[in-house]
Amino acid sequence: MGESSALQAILYDRGSLRLLDQRKLPLEEVYIDVKDSTDGWNAISDMVVRGAPAIAIAAALSLAVEVFDQDFTSTPAEAASFISKKLEYLVSSRPTAVNLSDAATKLQSLVSRTAETAKDAKLIFQVFIEAAETMLVDDVADNKAIGSHGAKFLQLQLGSSKNISVLTHCNTGSLATAGYGTALGVIRALHSGGVLEKAFCTETRPFNQGSRLTAFELVHEKIPATLIADSAAAALMNNGQVQAVIVGADRIAANGDTANKIGTYNLSISAKHHGVQFYVAAPVTSIDLSLPSGKEIVIEERSPKELLNSEGGLGKQVAASGISVWNPAFDVTPANLITAIITEKGVITKSDPDGTFDIEDFIKAAK
Amino acid sequence: MGESSALQAILYDRGSLRLLDQRKLPLEEVYIDVKDSTDGWNAISDMVVRGAPAIAIAAALSLAVEVFDQDFTSTPAEAASFISKKLEYLVSSRPTAVNLSDAATKLQSLVSRTAETAKDAKLIFQVFIEAAETMLVDDVADNKAIGSHGAKFLQLQLGSSKNISVLTHCNTGSLATAGYGTALGVIRALHSGGVLEKAFCTETRPFNQGSRLTAFELVHEKIPATLIADSAAAALMNNGQVQAVIVGADRIAANGDTANKIGTYNLSISAKHHGVQFYVAAPVTSIDLSLPSGKEIVIEERSPKELLNSEGGLGKQVAASGISVWNPAFDVTPANLITAIITEKGVITKSDPDGTFDIEDFIKAAK
Repeated sequence: MGESSALQAILYDRGSLRLLDQRKLPLEEVYIDVKDSTDGWNAISDMVVRGAPAIAIAAALSLAVEVFDQDFTSTPAEAASFISKKLEYLVSSRPTAVNLSDAATKLQSLVSRTAETAKDAKLIFQVFIEAAETMLVDDVADNKAIGSHGAKFLQLQLGSSKNISVLTHCNTGSLATAGYGTALGVIRALHSGGVLEKAFCTETRPFNQGSRLTAFELVHEKIPATLIADSAAAALMNNGQVQAVIVGADRIAANGDTANKIGTYNLSISAKHHGVQFYVAAPVTSIDLSLPSGKEIVIEERSPKELLNSEGGLGKQVAASGISVWNPAFDVTPANLITAIITEKGVITKSDPDGTFDIEDFIKAAK
Repeated sequence: MGESSALQAILYDRGSLRLLDQRKLPLEEVYIDVKDSTDGWNAISDMVVRGAPAIAIAAALSLAVEVFDQDFTSTPAEAASFISKKLEYLVSSRPTAVNLSDAATKLQSLVSRTAETAKDAKLIFQVFIEAAETMLVDDVADNKAIGSHGAKFLQLQLGSSKNISVLTHCNTGSLATAGYGTALGVIRALHSGGVLEKAFCTETRPFNQGSRLTAFELVHEKIPATLIADSAAAALMNNGQVQAVIVGADRIAANGDTANKIGTYNLSISAKHHGVQFYVAAPVTSIDLSLPSGKEIVIEERSPKELLNSEGGLGKQVAASGISVWNPAFDVTPANLITAIITEKGVITKSDPDGTFDIEDFIKAAK
């Protein structure tokens, strides 16, 4: 699954799951065996695997591996309840990841529906395994669709057939998804279409997902790329070196307000100031229509250690002893600073450039 | 010199100079003996000492120590020429630091004027030593004046007698000056005046002057303070947690455009977007009237290693092998994004808030 040359964070064959240990990147490429949902829970919680789509898929597949050769002699209803409880447990590994809880809800409903008519517990497992596998296949297909829609739209908007340079933040590539990537998928599509001049990636403090992971993917894919400090983004835009910023999303509210890695909001303000386009690229599973706006998104705070010590908290002490730290994991970019939202179903635009998006209408129309 | 409890980067007594090795902060407080201009050149070039005012003073004092017990038997003109050449050499340690080259020019002109009438080479050295010592004393006095003008002006502008919270970038404190600091001097004055609620400092990537040095000074001075990632600044402003940003300057052009640590421009755009005041605090020696605007300021690029390795380039590899890096040391904040420039001679304001400053007039009036 995925192209053979492309980086794969999730290596899966029925009954076997291996996850690339992203904490060791870019210095070592080590895969970890995941034998059951406990291994899956730990891998997600310890950030072996990260990125909203990848987390959901890894969680489902870890349970698929667990039930693959399960000797389970009870009723279909008990099998469905077993899966349901394990999924609940997996959701607790990263409670703020909407894709994970969405996927769990859908899978729970699927197995309980199946249990109503099934005669054999084994069938429940079979159905669950196939659903988890479909998530993996669909995610790659969705990302390729995002890439293709995005590349076409950017060329249209920027009105140039060549020489598009873009800036991205955090990691949204093969390492954050089942393959290809969301925002990085668009960059990949621009590159394979021969219209990308250069991709710039931010360091993405404090956990360095940009310098460690995105830079690694860009070098791996031989995409012309340059790394900058997060705070150099405004100077880069002022030099006219990028025509667009393209980022992923952790969660998108119904009006288009987007929660994403801390620093995204900063970039959107700078983009506005310099007349640079600002795009969000994400699967529709990242959209949470139950949230009217970004105000309802709760921002997780991460450990002060990420700023106090080197290597995103894993290395030596760098900062002064005794200093307080404010380390929000995400910020919310308001819809009025977003040019368009690129999904696998097409590009969501707005009639008033300073307004919000009507995502509900878009999704209804796309169905 | 300086308050006894305050941190001192420059320890000087006639004939003896010791510099706090700022590369070792905040983990170790080690002083390095500087015996001559060669030691001074190395200390500046290796970033033992940093900060525009501190560099100029350390350079002059390193030469003052060298000539203090010099057995020099030639003419006054030869002594002046000796000092002049050594100063030229010292300027080459950090060619972009305007305070250093300005100070060198002034000292060169002083010794050559003195040489015209002096009968003894020793007098030339004596005059030079006293001038270098005056720089040290004057810098602390100037910074205290900056602090006092700034604290008064902020309270006036922000219209609140209490609870002012500010954000600062890089290090502009006792460690960057002879003592007290410029932007940090204003924060210090707000704190001692009982009106500072909290100071926020950025990490200041890639060399971490904020998390290592400013955080160290703020903890040392018991000023309530919180460290944030550079890219969290916009989210902080959006939360209404700061009323002002206050930064130092490496160089200020005649119209007020200001070159300062990379990321300053980013902060000024964010401040504008959130209606947060943006102040530059610097001695008038940072102003270069020969530059009509910031366009004429050449931006030094620093080593890619600062982003590729941890600890600002001194630690382990963090980023992906093979990635290109753009690492500008400074950026230029245009005058239209600066609320006011705080100097030791008073605060430079402008009639049109979106316009530029007439600094030449201010300086003429202040004389």
